[in-house]
Amino acid sequence: MADPWQECMDYAVTLAKKAGEMIRGALKEEKSIMIKSSPVDLVTETDQKVENFIISLIKENASLVRCSLRFPVFLIFFTCNYQCFIGEESVAAGEGSILTDNPTWIIDPIDGTTNFVHRFPFVAVSIGFVVNKKIEFGIVYSCVEDKMYTARKGKGAFCNGQKLKVSGQEDITKSLLVTELGSNRDPETIKIVLSNMERLLSIPIHGIRAVGTAAVNMCLVAAGGADAYYEMGIHCWDMAGAGIIITEAGGVLLDVSGGPFDLMSRRIIAASSRPIAERIAKALQIIPLKRDDATN
Amino acid sequence: MADPWQECMDYAVTLAKKAGEMIRGALKEEKSIMIKSSPVDLVTETDQKVENFIISLIKENASLVRCSLRFPVFLIFFTCNYQCFIGEESVAAGEGSILTDNPTWIIDPIDGTTNFVHRFPFVAVSIGFVVNKKIEFGIVYSCVEDKMYTARKGKGAFCNGQKLKVSGQEDITKSLLVTELGSNRDPETIKIVLSNMERLLSIPIHGIRAVGTAAVNMCLVAAGGADAYYEMGIHCWDMAGAGIIITEAGGVLLDVSGGPFDLMSRRIIAASSRPIAERIAKALQIIPLKRDDATN
Repeated sequence: MADPWQECMDYAVTLAKKAGEMIRGALKEEKSIMIKSSPVDLVTETDQKVENFIISLIKENASLVRCSLRFPVFLIFFTCNYQCFIGEESVAAGEGSILTDNPTWIIDPIDGTTNFVHRFPFVAVSIGFVVNKKIEFGIVYSCVEDKMYTARKGKGAFCNGQKLKVSGQEDITKSLLVTELGSNRDPETIKIVLSNMERLLSIPIHGIRAVGTAAVNMCLVAAGGADAYYEMGIHCWDMAGAGIIITEAGGVLLDVSGGPFDLMSRRIIAASSRPIAERIAKALQIIPLKRDDATN
Repeated sequence: MADPWQECMDYAVTLAKKAGEMIRGALKEEKSIMIKSSPVDLVTETDQKVENFIISLIKENASLVRCSLRFPVFLIFFTCNYQCFIGEESVAAGEGSILTDNPTWIIDPIDGTTNFVHRFPFVAVSIGFVVNKKIEFGIVYSCVEDKMYTARKGKGAFCNGQKLKVSGQEDITKSLLVTELGSNRDPETIKIVLSNMERLLSIPIHGIRAVGTAAVNMCLVAAGGADAYYEMGIHCWDMAGAGIIITEAGGVLLDVSGGPFDLMSRRIIAASSRPIAERIAKALQIIPLKRDDATN
């Protein structure tokens, strides 16, 4: 049987590319910046414009998902609302983020909005496609670098057509990690974030890097440039695209508790090997967080 | 009068380009890694090979510096040792790093050796040229990205021919900073490094990034992608190339105490404006360090 989602993925790659062009264009203009949860949690009109662009074009091509499922034509009417969307800006505007078994597009129009605002050159469009709560394919387009990362379940991960492979490093004392300081400025949260860095640096590890986007950080692990990424406080739209890029490159996703990875939990360890992931989990103090799918 | 150092600078750009090619070639090979001051302070054969390559070619072309000074030919014999070198690997091998008034080449063959070892894609060749203790020109070649940053005193800073300009941001609460966690794993030093981050994050600032090389971090500030870089524990060869790229892009160099920048002090604030630099200086707790030119 032909791959039921390949056509959706191909279409999503073209959308990510076009979205990236919009972002590169917007980087040349003055931006009006708004704040979200805190004075350092930023959003721009471009975030909203790019998300609307991606979602509206997927909706216009809704037949893609139906065709992929090989539904008979007379059922089209009943399948119009079959596909779901979870987008960072739609959720910020009040839409829900409950993950069902339906085919669901999980979209971050600009992963790295603070970078975008500052023109720090790491900004990504992230699209993940999830069916029965499993990621089927993921796309991360790091548009300033012009690097298109893609992965289809069971078919490997690629960057601009080149196959990706994690480093395979298992020894934490020889590892380079990526993480972020995040946008939460609550003093207790900052203390835990920094104390986690202190515990890891003291193991010791080779170092910690932070380029300012979860998706690109994860792709750097998938490409073998770093040995693991961890973070708490991010969202499903930061992880859905890059999550499968990690696993298809031979890496491992784990929850920060050391248990199974949960896309809606707002926390992740994405590593080049299970021993590294487990060692990081052992070091981390957990930050209490409201899940993405919390109903209140 | 013609620019006395332009020919030296043009030659140094070609050397940096060739050195970058050597590094890109070495990234495809297996590396034997050695440790320096601590298990996380790394060096490879490529660091040494690239430094030897640069210094030997400059020495072969010693006439460049003499010609630039327009010395008469009969004086060539007396001027053979006129130019000096301070290179990261030569100093590691026991050579001195005292800065005199002589024309001095300050070289970091691979800024970001840990990145190089891990293939984290930010690795730079840094060449600074200092006369009478003032930086005359600087070159930072971020060779994986293929970005050639250059600056000549009084003539502006450029990246791949495009003029650079700092952001000009003066408000620390709207700033994005770059720094590093460093390679010192002494528990007291780690505590100060993290506590400085805590103080800055709490102001609040927009965020902190770390790409793993001082020179590239500074060039990101020069390009306007971040508003300031600060670090303690780096060396003159990490700062000499990029220092003038910052000032020629309209930025400011300051000591972490808030006083004048000192190339041999192992500490720096490189900012897009004086108010930002001074505000960072006010926040920082200082790490005690032995100067690069300490004699014991």
